[in-house]
Amino acid sequence: MKSDLSCLMQERGLDALVVIGPDGLGSANTAFTYFTGGAHVTNGTIVVKRDGVGTLVHATMERDEAAKTGLQLISASNYKMSEIIQQCKGDRLAARVEYTRRLFNDLGVSGRVGFYGADSVGSTFSFLSALSRAEFVEVITEYENDVISQARKTKDAQEVAQIRQACRLTEGVIGETRDFLQRHRVADEILLKQDGTALTIADVKSFIRREEAAAGLDDAGCIFAIGRDAGVPHSSGTPADQIRLGQTIVFDIFPRLIGGYYADITRTWCLGYAPDDVQAAYELVMKVHDDAAAAFNTQRFTYEFQDLACDIFEARGHRTVRQDIGVTNGYVHSLGHGFGLDVHESPGMSMKGLRPDEKMMPGTIVTNEPGLYYPDKGWGIRVEDDYWCNPETGEFECLTGFDRGLVVAM
Amino acid sequence: MKSDLSCLMQERGLDALVVIGPDGLGSANTAFTYFTGGAHVTNGTIVVKRDGVGTLVHATMERDEAAKTGLQLISASNYKMSEIIQQCKGDRLAARVEYTRRLFNDLGVSGRVGFYGADSVGSTFSFLSALSRAEFVEVITEYENDVISQARKTKDAQEVAQIRQACRLTEGVIGETRDFLQRHRVADEILLKQDGTALTIADVKSFIRREEAAAGLDDAGCIFAIGRDAGVPHSSGTPADQIRLGQTIVFDIFPRLIGGYYADITRTWCLGYAPDDVQAAYELVMKVHDDAAAAFNTQRFTYEFQDLACDIFEARGHRTVRQDIGVTNGYVHSLGHGFGLDVHESPGMSMKGLRPDEKMMPGTIVTNEPGLYYPDKGWGIRVEDDYWCNPETGEFECLTGFDRGLVVAM
Repeated sequence: MKSDLSCLMQERGLDALVVIGPDGLGSANTAFTYFTGGAHVTNGTIVVKRDGVGTLVHATMERDEAAKTGLQLISASNYKMSEIIQQCKGDRLAARVEYTRRLFNDLGVSGRVGFYGADSVGSTFSFLSALSRAEFVEVITEYENDVISQARKTKDAQEVAQIRQACRLTEGVIGETRDFLQRHRVADEILLKQDGTALTIADVKSFIRREEAAAGLDDAGCIFAIGRDAGVPHSSGTPADQIRLGQTIVFDIFPRLIGGYYADITRTWCLGYAPDDVQAAYELVMKVHDDAAAAFNTQRFTYEFQDLACDIFEARGHRTVRQDIGVTNGYVHSLGHGFGLDVHESPGMSMKGLRPDEKMMPGTIVTNEPGLYYPDKGWGIRVEDDYWCNPETGEFECLTGFDRGLVVAM
Repeated sequence: MKSDLSCLMQERGLDALVVIGPDGLGSANTAFTYFTGGAHVTNGTIVVKRDGVGTLVHATMERDEAAKTGLQLISASNYKMSEIIQQCKGDRLAARVEYTRRLFNDLGVSGRVGFYGADSVGSTFSFLSALSRAEFVEVITEYENDVISQARKTKDAQEVAQIRQACRLTEGVIGETRDFLQRHRVADEILLKQDGTALTIADVKSFIRREEAAAGLDDAGCIFAIGRDAGVPHSSGTPADQIRLGQTIVFDIFPRLIGGYYADITRTWCLGYAPDDVQAAYELVMKVHDDAAAAFNTQRFTYEFQDLACDIFEARGHRTVRQDIGVTNGYVHSLGHGFGLDVHESPGMSMKGLRPDEKMMPGTIVTNEPGLYYPDKGWGIRVEDDYWCNPETGEFECLTGFDRGLVVAM
């Protein structure tokens, strides 16, 4: 969590962190929004010295939004960029290096400086290469698991409260969606609208988006896929598809509080009734789900939970991604992942070969989402809940409570 | 536009483009979505050889979404990443370099290779530094105005059609919002809800979000700011503020088609009546708006249009950002900017010192958004429309038609 940052910086010998907030990435630049919170700051730079409060360099016309962040503030206009550009004979990259030199000088930043945030690949590599050559600080970058990702691997009480709220609101949307489906009449096993035409995936998705907006959630695109599409985990669904009884619907919804924390929940529904093979597969998925949740702890490597899932599925004759990374029929993905300001964060819960040394920690929040997929048979199943390792008890608590039932009465 | 890419690559001596699509950035990674279109591909890598069709390397479980892109496809699982990681003794960065070597070898990529897309600063700098050292290709990056930004500076017919649609839907939302305000009764100059409590900015924003969702637009955060807040261009508005007659409301709305192209429109409203000084300032802003639109062409530098705006405002006694980059009362920002898949794209329309050599081109789409801001007097004004330089006629056409009137009858 954020309070670990100064320790983590010390461990890695970092004198300062610089988080780059370029225009355009907005709330997708989560290393930046980790510090700015809900304020609508579209660009800027954050500088955090070890044991120091962070400073935000912001555009003058964003001063009100900047003030909401609680960071110390400097207006970028203090640095008169157009004069610096002129001094650098129009070379905007050289000007950015010179601007950075002046800013670091004013803030007393020197030594080993780590760089974070997201930006265009071209801007990053050109700028950091030039900054390294200028040699007034030592430019440090980490390929993965950087100091900010590491801090974000555990959530503080305020973050847990926000994720709980995101889950609660998301479950409200799931419930409204189920009610919406149930309100439709059925003819020849197909759901019909008032006007007698078939309800489509596009109609349902439009309903979901409006419910999310009404709940104060940002839609990040959801999966509502039926039949064969449900058998392809990241197929988001075919807009024109009709909603037919007895077919699996994978409904994977991952909205977030506006500009903030995600929830990530999946339910699989069969409207009216479930075919026997689907019912049996669903029960096996739930067994894996429950066994994994019961096994979650912070001592074992995360690949051991993936192994647990693969062991059970393979013992029942299903192919798994552990046997073949390109498998398309069987258990085809990892068991879960951390989330927070990003929908995928550390830790991953994948195979040993891909993630050999990850563990969960007190304060970690992860999904638990085993599934079985048989696109050629026309079905797929995934059930996903969110778990938090409560640091006070060491126990994993489930943050999601929505009914997991497969069959939705019509 | 996209069809210019092969020429632009030739001019810059590039043998291939690589667009990085890391997990998590989604539709904010617009160099990536420029190639994937509306498909929900959450991660992958795009490789475009000069004069060649692009290839998308995608996750196996995203194969259906990948197929919607029209790109040639390779499943990432072909490369058995866990084996490469093992060969690299668990060094995931070294494994990515080796994976890239194998991929480039299979695709026949060599020579000068440009890198694009957005990613975390740490991942980009670590990876491209390691790739440069490996020396099997020459790593090229451009700090700004890279080959993809340059292509995107002009829009093809399909893109213009999508931006037109985004504008049309956005104008629908603006109209619904005006109707919504007008439906409220007024007491003591304050808008009241059914229950007798005051309508707030938060209520209006919630209405706007629901209307956007119903229209099939992604909300990217809008500005609905009243009174003093309207005087600070990027203040997004104070949620608890009441809606009072006679105060300026700056309503700057910039949603996009789901995962796609933006519109960017601003209206300033005074409900009931406008004070005389506001009415006079509004007329001056409209004069600048109209004079600038009439002057738009592709021969002059874009800073000349900003100069035109500053000349008019200064002649009427207003301070401008040309005189003082940190100005907070007067004309405090640039005249406009390109947009498309990003809400801010090339070309900028700022001061000569910041943007000395930009011009618009046939096919460019830009905003025209002069404004006047007096936070200390409690008001601000901005009127923003979108213009497209039609390559067939050379004329700038206004893409937005919503009534620009200041006073909204109550």
